Amino acid sequence: MVDEPHPGGIPTATRHRELSVLPGMCGPLHAFAATTGDWTWQTVGDLCGFDVCTAHDAEGRPAYLAFAYFRISSRGSLHPGSLTFGDRLSVDSAAHDAGRSSVLTRHRIRRLTPGAVERPTAFHPSELADQPRQDSLYIENFNAWVARRSEGCNADLLHAPPPAFRVSSLPPVPTGATAQDVWRTARRDGSLSEEGFEDWLPVAPAAITEQPVDAACDVNGVGLLYFASFFSIAERAQLALWRQLGRNVTEFLQRTLLDLRMCYFGNADVDSILRTETRLRHHPTSPRLERADILVRDVATDRSIAVASWLYRRPD
Amino acid sequence: MVDEPHPGGIPTATRHRELSVLPGMCGPLHAFAATTGDWTWQTVGDLCGFDVCTAHDAEGRPAYLAFAYFRISSRGSLHPGSLTFGDRLSVDSAAHDAGRSSVLTRHRIRRLTPGAVERPTAFHPSELADQPRQDSLYIENFNAWVARRSEGCNADLLHAPPPAFRVSSLPPVPTGATAQDVWRTARRDGSLSEEGFEDWLPVAPAAITEQPVDAACDVNGVGLLYFASFFSIAERAQLALWRQLGRNVTEFLQRTLLDLRMCYFGNADVDSILRTETRLRHHPTSPRLERADILVRDVATDRSIAVASWLYRRPD
Repeated sequence: MVDEPHPGGIPTATRHRELSVLPGMCGPLHAFAATTGDWTWQTVGDLCGFDVCTAHDAEGRPAYLAFAYFRISSRGSLHPGSLTFGDRLSVDSAAHDAGRSSVLTRHRIRRLTPGAVERPTAFHPSELADQPRQDSLYIENFNAWVARRSEGCNADLLHAPPPAFRVSSLPPVPTGATAQDVWRTARRDGSLSEEGFEDWLPVAPAAITEQPVDAACDVNGVGLLYFASFFSIAERAQLALWRQLGRNVTEFLQRTLLDLRMCYFGNADVDSILRTETRLRHHPTSPRLERADILVRDVATDRSIAVASWLYRRPD
Repeated sequence: MVDEPHPGGIPTATRHRELSVLPGMCGPLHAFAATTGDWTWQTVGDLCGFDVCTAHDAEGRPAYLAFAYFRISSRGSLHPGSLTFGDRLSVDSAAHDAGRSSVLTRHRIRRLTPGAVERPTAFHPSELADQPRQDSLYIENFNAWVARRSEGCNADLLHAPPPAFRVSSLPPVPTGATAQDVWRTARRDGSLSEEGFEDWLPVAPAAITEQPVDAACDVNGVGLLYFASFFSIAERAQLALWRQLGRNVTEFLQRTLLDLRMCYFGNADVDSILRTETRLRHHPTSPRLERADILVRDVATDRSIAVASWLYRRPD
């Protein structure tokens, strides 16, 4: 872990790691999300000197540093689908005080060239907004503390920061960071911003799936629907539409993910049925560039529990 | 990593680690299998001084240290479903030369008591067979090298050890280790041994599921059906039967897994349909003790690609 003053005088708290990609973190998007989500908890725990895994709120209820926003952003050269067994990665992580005990965490991932000497490169707080590196894959997470209002019920979570958790040691959210605004707007509108996509063309009518929560796969170690499982749910929804369009699975697996944003608004019980609505559009002149928007609703309570957008390039 | 001569003169190669359970390794059984499977690759890589992630066979084809056998064995106090966020674990891992460049790897997992001083305890090669510890959870893996006979086809893998991979530095498979015999017998019989279960009583007629490969979730970073996904497939098959019997999901999540054995015989293409057949039996006098046997077949090629048995206790 490295704590270094930022050149411009803004404090920064960062953590650096190097690792080899093992089977557990590549392939399915949920595996990549799960691994990088664990990095977020580790980063926050290390930088705040707090065990985020075993926290309780002021009422003594177990409290969880829930994912409210998950963004994966790439320039197309390094993207989740390009990771494979044995890739050496360099990861720089930074965390910021996002107010109300919530945290904005970012990871910059670079692939190391075998045998080459790695030149350390500062992870500038405004890099992601101003000048994302061509060779890097970025993760941005906004996490807030939640607890169950009543035991055993996932559908009614409340804001529940642990009293001993202090984010004030972290630098403030950098200028240009939009995670919280994106999340608030998405919650208000029930969809992610259309800005810059007004002239994109529909590929197909909106497609619906009904997915019972897969209790064998999608429930985490504390009985909540796992944040990474929403990646599976949204991927399945897109694959269903993909098949309806007569496209093949191999091509689905070869997409180049450019920008993915997932906003979480709630959780669901383990025997719930989720309904997804997927809208698919393509770029007006580059039809291989597509954007899928997915809305996830809990059927029984008729709540929107997540919205997401996937921007990707289909293979030639 | 520790290399120590075994007291009885038998060489042993072991690795020790301590870690905190993060969300990515608990909850769904596939997450636990994925994490511990990664430990197996790391252990073999470290102990053999070989990068198992980027290997090639003598013909230059990418070669993978595939899981042929995966066993999870517990005495009921520490089991996968009992793991939760922040648990501190002590893991001892050992690898053995299983012949033909294949490897037998074992992990012994113990939960550390917060604040207590950990007493190192040798992981004896015959411990699992002779005297498994009450407080421990054991993983046993038998891995063999495979490669695709033809590019892009998962249904026809061949034995393909990398020429530079040497297992001879590892100690031989300990006396009493049954992994390879269990695997061979299971392949011959199409099911796991019935020994000791002859008088168990059927709970329901055999139940069938058809599960298209979930390309969004079950394909690993090299395009093969991921070994850990077979845990999802077998869990889904059991949950389907569980629902048919009118049992609830919460109880499914509260099972105490005592012994799980999965034998892999092949892989399948990403657009395959898998058929599972599940037989469920209970102990003649302790009906909460159940054994589920699951056979997984690739429908298109009519091959058995895996058989598994789950021995568990239902909650009271």
